[in-house]
Amino acid sequence: MVNSKPYVIGIDMGGTNTVFGIVDARGVVLTSDSIKTRKHSNINDYIDELYAGITRLIESIEAQDKIFGIGVGAPNANYYTGMIEDGVNLPWPTPVPFAQLLRDKFNIPVAITNDANAAAIGEMTYGAARGLKDFIMITLGTGVGSGVVVNGQLVYGHDGFAGELGHVIVKRNNGRLCGCGRAGCLETYCSATGVARTAREFLEIRDGESSLLRNIPIDEITSKDVYDAAMAGDKLAKDVFEYTGNILGEALADFTTFTSPEAFILFGGLAKSGELLLKPLRESMERNMLSIWKNKVKILPSELKEADAAVLGASALGWEAKDK
Amino acid sequence: MVNSKPYVIGIDMGGTNTVFGIVDARGVVLTSDSIKTRKHSNINDYIDELYAGITRLIESIEAQDKIFGIGVGAPNANYYTGMIEDGVNLPWPTPVPFAQLLRDKFNIPVAITNDANAAAIGEMTYGAARGLKDFIMITLGTGVGSGVVVNGQLVYGHDGFAGELGHVIVKRNNGRLCGCGRAGCLETYCSATGVARTAREFLEIRDGESSLLRNIPIDEITSKDVYDAAMAGDKLAKDVFEYTGNILGEALADFTTFTSPEAFILFGGLAKSGELLLKPLRESMERNMLSIWKNKVKILPSELKEADAAVLGASALGWEAKDK
Repeated sequence: MVNSKPYVIGIDMGGTNTVFGIVDARGVVLTSDSIKTRKHSNINDYIDELYAGITRLIESIEAQDKIFGIGVGAPNANYYTGMIEDGVNLPWPTPVPFAQLLRDKFNIPVAITNDANAAAIGEMTYGAARGLKDFIMITLGTGVGSGVVVNGQLVYGHDGFAGELGHVIVKRNNGRLCGCGRAGCLETYCSATGVARTAREFLEIRDGESSLLRNIPIDEITSKDVYDAAMAGDKLAKDVFEYTGNILGEALADFTTFTSPEAFILFGGLAKSGELLLKPLRESMERNMLSIWKNKVKILPSELKEADAAVLGASALGWEAKDK
Repeated sequence: MVNSKPYVIGIDMGGTNTVFGIVDARGVVLTSDSIKTRKHSNINDYIDELYAGITRLIESIEAQDKIFGIGVGAPNANYYTGMIEDGVNLPWPTPVPFAQLLRDKFNIPVAITNDANAAAIGEMTYGAARGLKDFIMITLGTGVGSGVVVNGQLVYGHDGFAGELGHVIVKRNNGRLCGCGRAGCLETYCSATGVARTAREFLEIRDGESSLLRNIPIDEITSKDVYDAAMAGDKLAKDVFEYTGNILGEALADFTTFTSPEAFILFGGLAKSGELLLKPLRESMERNMLSIWKNKVKILPSELKEADAAVLGASALGWEAKDK
């Protein structure tokens, strides 16, 4: 079959950079570039710069008229409405009809969803979830995001906002304050930020104990510092991963009761901590699992190349884009 | 359109009774009957008695050759495999290929699922969930069951066992021992049994406080007794419902993050407690809800007539039955 429009465009809007690329049907990123997300206070200026950047890419590979659709992953983007509903970190006012603005500018079908959902679609199309019909993507970044796939389809829910598993409350009493205004959310413990918070807590509570992390000003400790210290054998840092994996394992065991996934796919910086995180995570998940699922649910790391992952995930949605 | 097979058979296998009936496409139970579930130690004798009972019903309304399919709701029944996998309360050995046994006997297509899933399908076909594409059925009976519907389809999950929300752990520390072998499961608090347990706990802890429930031997208190006492104005009994509604509300707020349902449908004995349960439940759910869903998710009581509900739910699945 000859496809006259063999490419899609993927746009990943992050808090700092907006990365975009042209991707073929096999998931090869043919060319990509980026602009600063927060440079313009007017959304139209941002769209203009994005249009200019993408047009340059299209021309560079002579892909005019070969673009099937545009897929966008952006925070709080709604698949149903095409709106970015709430952009805490964006310089222009929200809600904004982002899909419509792009469609008007490019005259190409556009589909948008939030970044974790885009990652789930990318993983299903090109990554670790190929062939899986029921899985849950967990993104462990600055926050914790998720994308739930049931019967081969991403779950958007009644209003387009399904899959906010980072905001399941894992500590009912005395939980950590979350950016959402509540306390005890999963993402306050199991994100990169959560790992740094745990490290700071442990350093304060375990006052007399030596740790490599004491060489860093306490407010500047990052999850990467904790990882490096743990890899160097630091007991306190290893305990931070143990604590994090334990809470995440409890949560994943609970999540299993919902959609009975074949696997959880872990994505994002923290997911690359290897056995430091995976060992306590697996042990905790199995210890807390309802018996019918014990030793049956896989935990798989993402298979998308990191540099391309965000664009690939967004681009995969481009194949679903429709004219509206 | 003339449908030559306008009826389905619904079979609801409970721990005590197996109720069955013939249902038309509008959800009218034309005729029904029941047998004892636990009378025979051999599954084939049970099937024979069921066959005889159903055949009598079919003949009584001259519905020979008018049955489209048979739907069964049974504990631990698996939609994919047609097996009853684990029957703690059944007198014959499990797993047992229940769908196949019925199909061989009746020569009619058969579909089976667990009782909570059957209830969700019934509610979607004939009840409070008509027209809803995304909802979660919560059955508050001896235990807590659930059926998750996404995009108009029941979620069976990778292995057919999705929707065990009664076994989400709501108390991590010092939780009540659950029949599943773990501790702190939702159903140890928010089932009829859970309500009775809470009443017993409160009676012990609040030693000096008078309560109508003290007129009943403590080990014999049922959720119905607690309901009656609360309706008579008993403070301790009302507090039991407050406590139950509070925990259930926390859980439903968490569940919302998963599939973003339009509504929760409450079914089962405890769901008929009215505002005694619903008021604290609603308040707790909204208090614990992530802001994007505050005051947006409905809590609806089941609309299926109680006497018919189980059979109706099972029968609705009969329309999905296929020859295998």
